[in-house]
Amino acid sequence: MFDTASLKYDANGLIPAIAQDHQSGEVLMMAWMNAEAVRQTLDSGRVTYWSRSRQGFWVKGESSGHVQKLVELRVDCDRDCLLLLVDQTGPACHTNRRSCFYTAIREGQEVVIMAPQNPSA
Amino acid sequence: MFDTASLKYDANGLIPAIAQDHQSGEVLMMAWMNAEAVRQTLDSGRVTYWSRSRQGFWVKGESSGHVQKLVELRVDCDRDCLLLLVDQTGPACHTNRRSCFYTAIREGQEVVIMAPQNPSA
Repeated sequence: MFDTASLKYDANGLIPAIAQDHQSGEVLMMAWMNAEAVRQTLDSGRVTYWSRSRQGFWVKGESSGHVQKLVELRVDCDRDCLLLLVDQTGPACHTNRRSCFYTAIREGQEVVIMAPQNPSA
Repeated sequence: MFDTASLKYDANGLIPAIAQDHQSGEVLMMAWMNAEAVRQTLDSGRVTYWSRSRQGFWVKGESSGHVQKLVELRVDCDRDCLLLLVDQTGPACHTNRRSCFYTAIREGQEVVIMAPQNPSA
């Protein structure tokens, strides 16, 4: 059986988790989990992070409705990073963009390459 | 102009960097950079991390030959995570697998879903 205690957490008891759209392959965001958040995510199928700013569990989409349904959780070779394949409802980013990685560095300049989605879309 | 000092680094001066195959979209690995590694990566086009275990710069592929050519660097909304679109030569993982995320959790069990590549491939 997979044991969340077998993962390597940092000094704050956290492990980075990368959320990727399971169909398009787009990397949506990176956030943090503690062991209990990993357990809750696996048990509920609803991606649940640990909010470092609020110091509490963050069931993704609980307030925004932009939920992440877990399709598959993967562990890396060092067991210190997670990859979450997700089914993302609406935008993943709090700026209403599909992905948090909407700023590219091109020829030394920052370029915004993604527009916010229509709230009603 | 993009300034590496505008990124948010952790208490150790590091920022997580996710490497993604620019063509297939596969997430290959996650490692860390400091400001100088970000600068070197942008300047050289060769992805350069900061090795926490060795406490030194880690020009990916320097010893293995499994280099990562930077296609595009992206910054997330909080400026505390990087996404690297890369052209990966050979396997990204030190286990000789294409990606470090080769272990899936399926029905509570760990399943290895990727085989090491043939060294001569």
